[in-house]
Amino acid sequence: MIRINLLRLSFPSSPSNFFAFSSQIPVLPLINRSRSRLMAKCAYTTAFEPPGKKLLFRQLFEKESSTYTYLLADVTHPDKPALLIDPVDKTVERDLSLVRELGLKLIYAMNTHVHADHVTGSGIIKTQVPDVKSIISKASNSKADILIEAGDKIYFGDLFLEARATPGHTLGCVTYVTGDGLDQPRPRMAFTGDALLIRGCGRTDFQGGSSSQLYKSVHSQIFTLPKDTLIYPAHDYKGFTVSTVGEEVLYNSRLTKDEETFESIMENLNLPYPKMIDMALPVNLTCGLQELTAKPVEAASN
Amino acid sequence: MIRINLLRLSFPSSPSNFFAFSSQIPVLPLINRSRSRLMAKCAYTTAFEPPGKKLLFRQLFEKESSTYTYLLADVTHPDKPALLIDPVDKTVERDLSLVRELGLKLIYAMNTHVHADHVTGSGIIKTQVPDVKSIISKASNSKADILIEAGDKIYFGDLFLEARATPGHTLGCVTYVTGDGLDQPRPRMAFTGDALLIRGCGRTDFQGGSSSQLYKSVHSQIFTLPKDTLIYPAHDYKGFTVSTVGEEVLYNSRLTKDEETFESIMENLNLPYPKMIDMALPVNLTCGLQELTAKPVEAASN
Repeated sequence: MIRINLLRLSFPSSPSNFFAFSSQIPVLPLINRSRSRLMAKCAYTTAFEPPGKKLLFRQLFEKESSTYTYLLADVTHPDKPALLIDPVDKTVERDLSLVRELGLKLIYAMNTHVHADHVTGSGIIKTQVPDVKSIISKASNSKADILIEAGDKIYFGDLFLEARATPGHTLGCVTYVTGDGLDQPRPRMAFTGDALLIRGCGRTDFQGGSSSQLYKSVHSQIFTLPKDTLIYPAHDYKGFTVSTVGEEVLYNSRLTKDEETFESIMENLNLPYPKMIDMALPVNLTCGLQELTAKPVEAASN
Repeated sequence: MIRINLLRLSFPSSPSNFFAFSSQIPVLPLINRSRSRLMAKCAYTTAFEPPGKKLLFRQLFEKESSTYTYLLADVTHPDKPALLIDPVDKTVERDLSLVRELGLKLIYAMNTHVHADHVTGSGIIKTQVPDVKSIISKASNSKADILIEAGDKIYFGDLFLEARATPGHTLGCVTYVTGDGLDQPRPRMAFTGDALLIRGCGRTDFQGGSSSQLYKSVHSQIFTLPKDTLIYPAHDYKGFTVSTVGEEVLYNSRLTKDEETFESIMENLNLPYPKMIDMALPVNLTCGLQELTAKPVEAASN
């Protein structure tokens, strides 16, 4: 299991000294398979703020592809480390402007999977903010700074996301779930990508998709989370912004069926060939690192 | 000052008897200008749930007009009374389906103002759920079941919204703000309609609009709220879902200017004539109660 955290976790001195020191050094990601989780907690826990107050959370929408991008940050940490889940190339300027206005330090640009309907913003973000590390699953067979596997924890300050393997829409789909612990936000939040959509799910006819695998993924990795876990998908086409595990277990129009019926539904969707796939896939397999001319990002003007 | 609450507030017996009784009678709105606020609190407060757990909140989006509809409910009250702010005619089926799935009792369909860019869903909702009462400001010169004024409190279960007059986009614009009290959700939430948008504001050149009035409204009624108050506008065109008072005070591209500069900006927007206004206004002046054939609403199928 990989634990992704920050280099300065090696300095668990007293909190005040620690933060004084850590704010002087650059934030560098460290992949550490052996470091204890407790150590990170000791280093970062301020213990004066309830977990809900640590998390800054923003849901952002890209209208053309109906994609949701999520911004999460630990705002009680002196650096306010932040990450973006599923950024879109067309809205990078908006997202980075918001990050700056909120005084956050963006450290990760993550994808739940290799998207076929839009170009990820990870590549542009890396050209604009070179310290940012891109993250995607190893199973996606993509290039990124950090390749994660099921069970890996991605720390941003005192908070973390846990990666759960949820293949079926694509081979390498993961769901990122906020941490299970008293010092983590409640209710939990699951960023499900296209594995589980609100009252629906992603198609399974491209990119190593498998309806049988998707059914097992959702039932074993998402529906087993606490019922009040908030579901934040990569897309919504009807204007919903959030759901819960409890709601989807009861009302998801596909995944409430038995496996055989589900597979039959998915095999008979007769969806058109994805119009962006031929352009988007090659770029997204390198986390958006196509040849780019780095341009300075202006603050959004309204 | 009007206090809008439920008829069963007249029965503040012991909580268990009260709820047993109240669940047997229909939920009827009552406009009461004299009843004490404390009485409502005593009748409804269960005191076992923190305020944040009482509120069920959903933000819903209508893509064509980029309108946000908000669903709020007190889920610790036995009836789960709920309200919709700024429902859109085209998404009523979705919204009522969600209300049913969540087991809520919709009691109010409210508008922040007379919209010019879409038809309100209030009228269709009233044909589908006849007990629902429509609400709009008295200053809007519209028809509705309940006409509110500044300072009025709109109760749904134990929770309430307070109406603040924020004219300027239109004459009758109001901002609904969640209650100020230990038993109300924290941080507070302000549903600002078109008075304050994220990093922007509504136009001021129609429907009794006034840039001078809008400037005063936002500065005196919204920017004076606690800095962590969440801003939920009626529209967003860039994919933002929420902001805070603190952010808008710092970064709103128009309302951070001095009043003279603001008025100059608003006078020189050179926006096109609103394409929906001639159709939408007459209908919205009666809260959407145009001639409708009531159709049963089916559960949304995905």
